[in-house]
Amino acid sequence: MTKRNAFYAQSGGVTAVINASACGVIETARKHRNRIGKLYAGRNGIIGALLEDMIDTGKESKAAIAALRHTPGGAFGSARYKLKGMDTHRAEYERLIAVFRAHDIGYFFYNGGGDSADTCYKVSQLSKKMGFPVQAIHVPKTVDNDLPITDTCPGFGSVAKYVAVSTREAALDVASMAKTSTKVFILEVMGRHAGWIAAAGGLAGQGRTQAPHIILFPEIPFDEQKFLQRVKQCVADYDYCVVVVSEGAAYKDGRFLADAGTIDAFGHKQLGGVAETVARMVRDSLGFKYHYAIADYLQRSARHIASKTDVSQAYAVGKAAVEMALAGENAVMPAIIRKSDKPYRWTIGKVPLARVANREKMMPRRFITRDGFGITAACRRYLEPLIRGEDYPPYRNGLPIYVDLKGISVPKKLKTKFML
Amino acid sequence: MTKRNAFYAQSGGVTAVINASACGVIETARKHRNRIGKLYAGRNGIIGALLEDMIDTGKESKAAIAALRHTPGGAFGSARYKLKGMDTHRAEYERLIAVFRAHDIGYFFYNGGGDSADTCYKVSQLSKKMGFPVQAIHVPKTVDNDLPITDTCPGFGSVAKYVAVSTREAALDVASMAKTSTKVFILEVMGRHAGWIAAAGGLAGQGRTQAPHIILFPEIPFDEQKFLQRVKQCVADYDYCVVVVSEGAAYKDGRFLADAGTIDAFGHKQLGGVAETVARMVRDSLGFKYHYAIADYLQRSARHIASKTDVSQAYAVGKAAVEMALAGENAVMPAIIRKSDKPYRWTIGKVPLARVANREKMMPRRFITRDGFGITAACRRYLEPLIRGEDYPPYRNGLPIYVDLKGISVPKKLKTKFML
Repeated sequence: MTKRNAFYAQSGGVTAVINASACGVIETARKHRNRIGKLYAGRNGIIGALLEDMIDTGKESKAAIAALRHTPGGAFGSARYKLKGMDTHRAEYERLIAVFRAHDIGYFFYNGGGDSADTCYKVSQLSKKMGFPVQAIHVPKTVDNDLPITDTCPGFGSVAKYVAVSTREAALDVASMAKTSTKVFILEVMGRHAGWIAAAGGLAGQGRTQAPHIILFPEIPFDEQKFLQRVKQCVADYDYCVVVVSEGAAYKDGRFLADAGTIDAFGHKQLGGVAETVARMVRDSLGFKYHYAIADYLQRSARHIASKTDVSQAYAVGKAAVEMALAGENAVMPAIIRKSDKPYRWTIGKVPLARVANREKMMPRRFITRDGFGITAACRRYLEPLIRGEDYPPYRNGLPIYVDLKGISVPKKLKTKFML
Repeated sequence: MTKRNAFYAQSGGVTAVINASACGVIETARKHRNRIGKLYAGRNGIIGALLEDMIDTGKESKAAIAALRHTPGGAFGSARYKLKGMDTHRAEYERLIAVFRAHDIGYFFYNGGGDSADTCYKVSQLSKKMGFPVQAIHVPKTVDNDLPITDTCPGFGSVAKYVAVSTREAALDVASMAKTSTKVFILEVMGRHAGWIAAAGGLAGQGRTQAPHIILFPEIPFDEQKFLQRVKQCVADYDYCVVVVSEGAAYKDGRFLADAGTIDAFGHKQLGGVAETVARMVRDSLGFKYHYAIADYLQRSARHIASKTDVSQAYAVGKAAVEMALAGENAVMPAIIRKSDKPYRWTIGKVPLARVANREKMMPRRFITRDGFGITAACRRYLEPLIRGEDYPPYRNGLPIYVDLKGISVPKKLKTKFML
């Protein structure tokens, strides 16, 4: 049994639980010191590898690593940096492998979404060709919930819980004010391509009569007249109307609602989000008083209301990634496999990266009601277990205690600098 | 000891804990059945009294009333409806008292902010003159925290906690992405006249070097150049910049930042909130990638992250209101009196409504740092105890269990209808 070092990096938009996966990777690696020597983390994701700017996780205390489990954001820094095509930008991959070779890194754990699964796969292939084989394991993460095969993506369950809880709470607020004030409330949530997050808002109520009365999915072409008609009917029937809108809601021709096409005084394209666009329609056509909220980063960083299921799964895929590496696996991803809905039972399976990379999982049409404004019973059965359970962080003086790592750098070994 | 009925109403924007005050009123009244007969609640606030549309709280189970303590929104409905001047609109007051007389209501508990304190006071005065004296007790509530004398206003502590926690969480997200993505994050919070809520964002970090790096208060005239300079400096120093902006942030001439003064294609005034305005400035002048969130109703309905201190105080003022009524008090408000900062000790005091009505408590200048962008140590000492403690609602299937009252109407006694 050879002993080699390992490299871990966070990729893309962070989540409330990506650090729980980091915790799973690090704690499990520490249990196998005979096989895994040092565990380095990329500072700011894969950029840290390219620049040979790595953090020695071994310098962090046991308590600090344990606290990652309840700390949102990306504790080592993440990056929106996609390695380009291997044909045209081979130098990037070669640099990556040069850094790995210099630090004797035999295990590469890459924690991200579809793009990073693809990178992971390429690193695995290229390193073999270059005579320095690296076992590349992808650790799934994305609030978008769009990775194939896995039942869900760590990060999604907590956003889903945040959106469901927030929708239920705001709906109570609007309901109590509707007689004399706001009648329409719009919550804008993430999801540019897939409506999974918007769908989660549907868990706030049961069926058509309860808020949210309308969900606008990216998957369903937006029909302004039909939408306004429904808003009007809701206000007539229930005195108010709650709308959850995905940032990716779009017209039939693919144009985003958020793309108002208007230009401001400075000649710049209007910034306005989709919530504002929808609010303006309601005001102009129906004249109802409205309010809108844009959850933005709050939704994906809200560790204070994380789903316990999600936290457990995030940790589990981190742990499984290390175990798979130690079992000699390469170019695979630990996936969550659903065994049953009620009670929700799941296990960790193993998926070849070739089957994960470059495939997006969209909401199936059968998860959306026929009128396009709500979620079906099948969708509920899928979503409900994912938001189950609370996993509160510890608090001090009214605020959650989130860990701030020391982040001590690994001394550089390469003479060459790399330009991004 | 005469036995009389009581009337309770919720007024103005609701909060995460206004129902905790209702719970305090109802549970305490139920302990004094020898003195308080029926306890009616106005359906949709004071409108319920004017329309003789009242809910019999006696028909609600003990468990349902107890659950009000952890349910956000206004369980009986609230209203943005200010009784007009007594000289010009005496008929409204007379109607109110006619309804009270018809239902033998001797106690009036009005749960709201400054306007409702004023109404409460007038009802007390006029009912005496009209020969049907009603003991009017004001139960303080407002997320704006702008009532005088009381240490804080129930509802504020929970918004403050929400904003502080959300700022801390979003800041971790931005910090981890800043290298390759978003550098400036803006959180828009409530507070049109006073910066108390924005100030609470300051609790997320300690001092200038930690997020939020900039707070924009309504009390400090906005200086675009100074603001942009600070944003630029933050990004240079820390790689990112977190801004908390009050919806009431304004220029020196009093014009709100949110009032962009631009007109859209339909000839309508632009809707845009202040966060968007600030974001556009950052983009146009500095070119940084930004994100913004608008918390809107989410902040004041977020019972899931309510402050335990706030919940206790909300309940306590409800309870004290009934006790004061039973002690023969009239035209008073139970106020929270701070006895010490550390540990935070408080008690309930009694304030004549004449001293409360029509007075707003603004942020003192000494609570804002000299540069106008942060909070001082004195402000921290004031704010910190108010967000202390967590008071989680019960959950089922991943969602908080919030009570939905039966809301059974009290039979009408008056023949006359009243037109609002």
